[in-house]
Amino acid sequence: MSTAPTPLPEPHQVSINLGERSYAIQIGAGLLDVALDRCNLPPSSDALVVTNTTVAPLYAQKLIQAIGKNHERIHTVQLPDGEVHKNWETLNLIFDALLQNGCDRKTVIYALGGGVVGDMSGFAAASYMRGVPFVQVPTTLLAQVDSSVGGKTAINHPLGKNMIGAFYQPQLVVCDLSTLSTLPAREVSAGLAEVIKYGPIADMAFFDWIEANIGRLLARDPGALVHAVKRSCEIKAEVVGQDEREGGVRAILNFGHTFGHAIEAGLGFGQWLHGEAVGCGMVMAATLSQRLGLVEEAFVARLTRLVERAGLPIRGPALGAQRYLDLMRVDKKAEAGEIKFVVIDRPGHAVVRGAPDDLVVSVLDDCCDQPLSN
Amino acid sequence: MSTAPTPLPEPHQVSINLGERSYAIQIGAGLLDVALDRCNLPPSSDALVVTNTTVAPLYAQKLIQAIGKNHERIHTVQLPDGEVHKNWETLNLIFDALLQNGCDRKTVIYALGGGVVGDMSGFAAASYMRGVPFVQVPTTLLAQVDSSVGGKTAINHPLGKNMIGAFYQPQLVVCDLSTLSTLPAREVSAGLAEVIKYGPIADMAFFDWIEANIGRLLARDPGALVHAVKRSCEIKAEVVGQDEREGGVRAILNFGHTFGHAIEAGLGFGQWLHGEAVGCGMVMAATLSQRLGLVEEAFVARLTRLVERAGLPIRGPALGAQRYLDLMRVDKKAEAGEIKFVVIDRPGHAVVRGAPDDLVVSVLDDCCDQPLSN
Repeated sequence: MSTAPTPLPEPHQVSINLGERSYAIQIGAGLLDVALDRCNLPPSSDALVVTNTTVAPLYAQKLIQAIGKNHERIHTVQLPDGEVHKNWETLNLIFDALLQNGCDRKTVIYALGGGVVGDMSGFAAASYMRGVPFVQVPTTLLAQVDSSVGGKTAINHPLGKNMIGAFYQPQLVVCDLSTLSTLPAREVSAGLAEVIKYGPIADMAFFDWIEANIGRLLARDPGALVHAVKRSCEIKAEVVGQDEREGGVRAILNFGHTFGHAIEAGLGFGQWLHGEAVGCGMVMAATLSQRLGLVEEAFVARLTRLVERAGLPIRGPALGAQRYLDLMRVDKKAEAGEIKFVVIDRPGHAVVRGAPDDLVVSVLDDCCDQPLSN
Repeated sequence: MSTAPTPLPEPHQVSINLGERSYAIQIGAGLLDVALDRCNLPPSSDALVVTNTTVAPLYAQKLIQAIGKNHERIHTVQLPDGEVHKNWETLNLIFDALLQNGCDRKTVIYALGGGVVGDMSGFAAASYMRGVPFVQVPTTLLAQVDSSVGGKTAINHPLGKNMIGAFYQPQLVVCDLSTLSTLPAREVSAGLAEVIKYGPIADMAFFDWIEANIGRLLARDPGALVHAVKRSCEIKAEVVGQDEREGGVRAILNFGHTFGHAIEAGLGFGQWLHGEAVGCGMVMAATLSQRLGLVEEAFVARLTRLVERAGLPIRGPALGAQRYLDLMRVDKKAEAGEIKFVVIDRPGHAVVRGAPDDLVVSVLDDCCDQPLSN
């Protein structure tokens, strides 16, 4: 006895409005189980699926089937997994695959994986023949709520994270929530850091909702995930729509990232996950906001508690305050050597500003483990 | 007895109209001898002058003095000279200099040199922190009439020329014709290839003028150079204004380049100068146009004669027809393996189209030296 397959519900959609660079984010469980015809995929003879050695065995065949009708030839390149590989050498594997397969300037690049795959595929798409179409298929929570909106692409340089890149928008983003079922718990937590972020900077009602649903989110309840991904993308889309190239307000999306990037760079990229560093960085940035007289201690405590419940670190590693300062001075937001911080000036609203070094040091002293004295 | 210095004449100016990415090209002799204040240079704490080991001793100090009032710190990086160095390793010298000097996202990058310095500096400016301001100071005729308009930046990949890059517009271009006095004669000829190009594709009156003034141009007569550079920039600006990202008409600027790129790649980048390959490539593309029944033999002969008078090669090297075809198939204009040629459909007008392989082979047989048979 055969049963007819249950039709999949229509995916949720978030529209990113950027004039001629507008595109849609499709969100739903099982989106890769059916042909992606309805998504207005750009047709082309050639496609290149960029993925990594972890994701490829899980989802590459599924994606290739889903896009099979759109292309005559679908090539694949597997990158090594991890932030430590987000460099020129790995990027060049993508260019090698494109050129060795004779891919032309209409070739569509699909990024199947997390933020590292997305960042590198996006920069490759921006740069190959000065720009080819690009589709994101993020398979981590972090990539679904963060890298899928905004068009930031980059690789790391030994002297700084994301220092070389481009603003480049995809044609389409497909967030299949089913891919999160295979994600390690540590990476679910890392993704939740960016979800939590949208509360303090933009929407305290969403923050309330996350607090009430953190258990469901950690358990990967599909209904909770749909809401978290959709609302995160909506908030980010609204901010990016106002300021695509980060001339001003867009910088608030970096809440927790100035401290976080210092943690990542100071420990060596890949030691802490990006989301872990951002989670801890948010606690530090909120503490700085409080010391600047902008928010109450109770707000800092509430944010710290939620970060902790999400399974994220709330104390910075023992790099030493001076090393933190040095690392933060090469942050892209820094101007003429002055570090710029995203601070919360009232719950649900953020601004970018400088802060006296001694105040920053006091925050680092209180929020970080201390180096052993010799 | 002292004499008052002769005031410099106001520079000629060509405006490039690209909406919010518009900018001006200043053209004149001696522009670097005075402060560039009047050029609306973007102010910033830091500037990086990118140049090469040949140009630096001649003009770096002059440029640094001219821009001295606009920046607190002016750093310099010298790249090795030549197309063979237009690769990632050399590009990375620019990123190293930017990061080692703590340059922020307002840092202005000045490209002082020829097309290779301009292409690499432009791509570095497009990519550093996802985009910093960029000023071009082209010191070769080729760069002044070609790379200074249009925003194409790129590096080479072992499998293809200009395969990795970006469309990125400068804030300003300063063409000091005095810098051409130190240019080797071979490079003046190479620059004239791109000047001549604008005739067949867009303006036969300009072609007439070049024919009548080729001697003055080869002798670097300032009055003739001003007209040649200005008119070339105007024509290119008009084409680029219609099609910034080369979706259509812009491709006509590649007249002679499909064959030319094959020559450069086939011999190894740097053996022939780009302009030499383009000069010879125009003869081949005009011959193809004639065999397609689009123009008369007399037109091909006239163009060939002018290319020769400019001191450029008019016969292709002996790569063998099949190798030419293979190399042209990886050209960026190729689509699904079909080579696209820019052909002249009437003198002063060009179109992009395919051509039967056997016709292309007949052109290659007649226009190129033949490989020795074994």
